[in-house]
Amino acid sequence: MDETISIVLFSGTDDKLQSASVMAAGAAALGRPVKILLQYWALDAFRADRINADHGLAPEAGEAGRAAMDAVTRAGGAHWSATMRAAKEIGDVDIQACSASMELLKLKQTDLDSLVDGIEGVASFFINAGEGQILFI
Amino acid sequence: MDETISIVLFSGTDDKLQSASVMAAGAAALGRPVKILLQYWALDAFRADRINADHGLAPEAGEAGRAAMDAVTRAGGAHWSATMRAAKEIGDVDIQACSASMELLKLKQTDLDSLVDGIEGVASFFINAGEGQILFI
Amino acid sequence: MDETISIVLFSGTDDKLQSASVMAAGAAALGRPVKILLQYWALDAFRADRINADHGLAPEAGEAGRAAMDAVTRAGGAHWSATMRAAKEIGDVDIQACSASMELLKLKQTDLDSLVDGIEGVASFFINAGEGQILFI
Repeated sequence: MDETISIVLFSGTDDKLQSASVMAAGAAALGRPVKILLQYWALDAFRADRINADHGLAPEAGEAGRAAMDAVTRAGGAHWSATMRAAKEIGDVDIQACSASMELLKLKQTDLDSLVDGIEGVASFFINAGEGQILFI
Repeated sequence: MDETISIVLFSGTDDKLQSASVMAAGAAALGRPVKILLQYWALDAFRADRINADHGLAPEAGEAGRAAMDAVTRAGGAHWSATMRAAKEIGDVDIQACSASMELLKLKQTDLDSLVDGIEGVASFFINAGEGQILFI
Repeated sequence: MDETISIVLFSGTDDKLQSASVMAAGAAALGRPVKILLQYWALDAFRADRINADHGLAPEAGEAGRAAMDAVTRAGGAHWSATMRAAKEIGDVDIQACSASMELLKLKQTDLDSLVDGIEGVASFFINAGEGQILFI
């Protein structure tokens, strides 16, 4: 199994971004190429000036979920952006900003964190995904 | 690559519906068959009498996200339903209402927009997906 | 087609848990192995002491969606946990708790409903998924 794992990363809450980062790191550790397309609110979360800001959680997290996430942070748990950076060091993880979402949010690549490798459209994303799995997060 | 791309479309907010429509159009433009199963709140959004209504956005969009989406609309950007209609003209895009969700929402096919081609169950959806990718949106 | 269908089950609202359960049952009925990895709020929803509690709905369900779901319950519709139990009786459905989410929520396996077969990490999940489809719900 050396098929690419592709992720359309749409959601911009810290819990889903963390889940995506852990899966990217896990797949990279297995030697699988990982390709991520950032759309909408996930793209917004990769802005250089706010990648470490509080991006909230899924509504069902509730107060107990919020407290559990905060406890991990206080205990020195890695931020999802650090996990994503580690994933890129471990293996072949490519992160592209979706061109349509760049226009929607009026962003230039210089507005984005250096984790983002470039800008591409949906058709290129599908072509690069090949026959590998695609997750929408 | 001429494998089908299948989408379980569950979410009923305009941002996710737009993302799904753009991906359906992109896959169709590549000549790939696209099969969409409408469930729950996405199915509700395809009701003939409210497909163009405001279906809201994911909670993390916030005010800035709302403003960005509205700016696109004011500038004449295509509604997701128009993008989905274009996808059906470009290629082989089949949209089915999930039979269980039809019962849940007490809908008949005549209640739905003409974009919807029929009604099917989850087992048929999996059979039609074959070995192609499946996204849950 | 006897490829595994894998599901990363992240969301903890009753509508998405129901959708996941129906898809697991549908895939199992087709004779396909199903592997589910419980993360974050979905894992929280499988706690033995609250699996049948009200876990809310996606925000876009609104009051009409809430009423539709309640009407099904009053009419004797199966809870998603019952559908998941049936899926395990029909076929080969394996449910694992994500080890990272177990730590996040400070849970032990004895805190979880008996539907959960064990605990595993993301890398094992990807290995077990093989070349089959993966859905993120």
